[in-house]
Amino acid sequence: MSETFTFRVLAEDGAARRGEISMPRGTVRTPAFMPVGTGGTVKAMYMDQVRALGSDIILGNTYHLMLRPGAERVARLGGLHDFARWPYPILTDSGGFQVMSLAALRKVREKGVTFRSHVDGQVFEMSPERSIEIQGLLDSDIQMQLDECVRLPAARDEVERAMELSLRWAERCKAAFGDQPGKAMFGIVQGGVDLRLRARSASALSTMDIKGYAVGGLAVGEPQETMLEILDATCPALPANKPRYLMGVGTPDDILKSVARGIDMFDCVMPTRAGRHGLAYTRRGKVNLKNARHADDPRPLDEESDCAAARDYSRAYLHHLVKSGEALGAMLLTWNNLAYYQSLMADIRAAIEAGRLSERAAEIQDEWARGDLPAL
Amino acid sequence: MSETFTFRVLAEDGAARRGEISMPRGTVRTPAFMPVGTGGTVKAMYMDQVRALGSDIILGNTYHLMLRPGAERVARLGGLHDFARWPYPILTDSGGFQVMSLAALRKVREKGVTFRSHVDGQVFEMSPERSIEIQGLLDSDIQMQLDECVRLPAARDEVERAMELSLRWAERCKAAFGDQPGKAMFGIVQGGVDLRLRARSASALSTMDIKGYAVGGLAVGEPQETMLEILDATCPALPANKPRYLMGVGTPDDILKSVARGIDMFDCVMPTRAGRHGLAYTRRGKVNLKNARHADDPRPLDEESDCAAARDYSRAYLHHLVKSGEALGAMLLTWNNLAYYQSLMADIRAAIEAGRLSERAAEIQDEWARGDLPAL
Repeated sequence: MSETFTFRVLAEDGAARRGEISMPRGTVRTPAFMPVGTGGTVKAMYMDQVRALGSDIILGNTYHLMLRPGAERVARLGGLHDFARWPYPILTDSGGFQVMSLAALRKVREKGVTFRSHVDGQVFEMSPERSIEIQGLLDSDIQMQLDECVRLPAARDEVERAMELSLRWAERCKAAFGDQPGKAMFGIVQGGVDLRLRARSASALSTMDIKGYAVGGLAVGEPQETMLEILDATCPALPANKPRYLMGVGTPDDILKSVARGIDMFDCVMPTRAGRHGLAYTRRGKVNLKNARHADDPRPLDEESDCAAARDYSRAYLHHLVKSGEALGAMLLTWNNLAYYQSLMADIRAAIEAGRLSERAAEIQDEWARGDLPAL
Repeated sequence: MSETFTFRVLAEDGAARRGEISMPRGTVRTPAFMPVGTGGTVKAMYMDQVRALGSDIILGNTYHLMLRPGAERVARLGGLHDFARWPYPILTDSGGFQVMSLAALRKVREKGVTFRSHVDGQVFEMSPERSIEIQGLLDSDIQMQLDECVRLPAARDEVERAMELSLRWAERCKAAFGDQPGKAMFGIVQGGVDLRLRARSASALSTMDIKGYAVGGLAVGEPQETMLEILDATCPALPANKPRYLMGVGTPDDILKSVARGIDMFDCVMPTRAGRHGLAYTRRGKVNLKNARHADDPRPLDEESDCAAARDYSRAYLHHLVKSGEALGAMLLTWNNLAYYQSLMADIRAAIEAGRLSERAAEIQDEWARGDLPAL
């Protein structure tokens, strides 16, 4: 860790980077996966477990936290780290994405967005300045600019308008954030699936003196190929000496391919959400524990895993828990899934250091393709 | 632990006993509280946590397990201990109580009970012999006789008929259980709220050579006073050298008062169920975390507790988790509640050893009566 926010690239392998973000609350080994702690909790997990899996940083959702329990309340209680008992780095999003996806009656104007809470119908105003203020109240280590995510498909004019608005909001967020050496505010590249708009957004943000860059507006249903094309066009347009964060992504395969294009940070609800729906991520691919084939299977998900959830519980037991709607089913599968994601990230980091990311990626993909254990 | 099922009374204090049940899978310190592991899981808990709280034995529900995942399946998977990863003693109920409370279309005949599963509507036949067979398939260490629990209030004739039937079923269960030195089959005293029927049931069971006795049909809504009167009439009619188990009881106060009347074992869903509904048991009484008074309270539930859930998380955070319906709320409060129950049992055992149960009970009750911390 360090007193000031710093990013160092330790090794490169093609476009992939093995790096390190240092902050007063800790060091983040990149490429990094950030478990999603929406409302101050990584769902169905104890923070000790999240940490023990090798998580250096988690994500908190500004939208959820501002509605409940409220940013001012979290601040009075000592900030999100104390509140949620996670003393390590936290990145918060700006709230913009959830305003677009969850809130009702949202109205975007130059000054900001007005919306109605999905929890209790209360009306809120969110400006770039207020988003940064909230993230400051939460005491977030990496704060995100407020941006406007348009729903795709959308007309090019509409995508362009939102992208340009997001650039102006980036400037306002930067000003609102000011000079905080131990923390960072990241800008967000927008532009939908239009490569020229993406390039315009990336180059405009690159001229701003900010500490990191996100690629936003992806993982919203577009084909993986589209996402990768956008990364191919965007990453080279971003400063090489700043971390790059691909928001809301993704599957293990998305992560492998995005790292190869120069992405350093990821967050995604998939491992946690899938864990609550009976799905396990493993080195042999995705396993649906609801499937009756597991009902009599005494084998664990992965006998070679370091994670107790993967190694010590039979598929038959996991199947039973999932079918019965038992909390322990979600607890164990979420644990397994985050363990798998973090082991994948460790594997990726080691492969970059060894200069063999593409070979290792092929091996990992082969193992996924071979599929799960044959039924007994 | 010992090769054969044994019960020793180590100390007495009035009618209260400090004892020890030894079995091949472990030793149970009595008075004991058995966390309820309905469907092969103590809801929202890892078994490691359950054990670490000082639980020597847990309870499994035959009714739930026979329906899902099925007793034969559990047997094929190595028994309930392997299945649920609890290598220590397990007591299973007979299924009779849940048949009466959960199943549809139940019909009781001399030979047994026919019922329809609440899970999938399938029709099952449960005889005393089948109940013991199922408990054997689960590899349960302490098995309960099948009994008929009538819903109260009921006519005396009906209560008597069910009690006499339960006595005949006790004989059949004993015969079906046979000679299993490392395990036990307990009989169940029935008789509703009629002290003479209870006395008849207890004395008839006492003449049978069985290894333990339960008091059933209580904790079904009757006043505590009624329950204690029944214990006053029943416990002295049971053999002093056998463990006595009060089924489905109860509140911490029920437990204190029942131990004082000679009860050695308890099970109850209260700590686990309350934990999923935002209620915390503490040495200062019951605390409702849903209450808005906790929203800004940085204090833990109990700063002196050995349990991290009670000691390390703010009430504000717990309130937030409960209000948001987060799994971690149920996980932490269940953990807190079982910790409180097990610490109460340890306290009770120490007080009996010291010959000061009534004094200690009064101190504990005083602390409950003083109530929770004043609001900030």
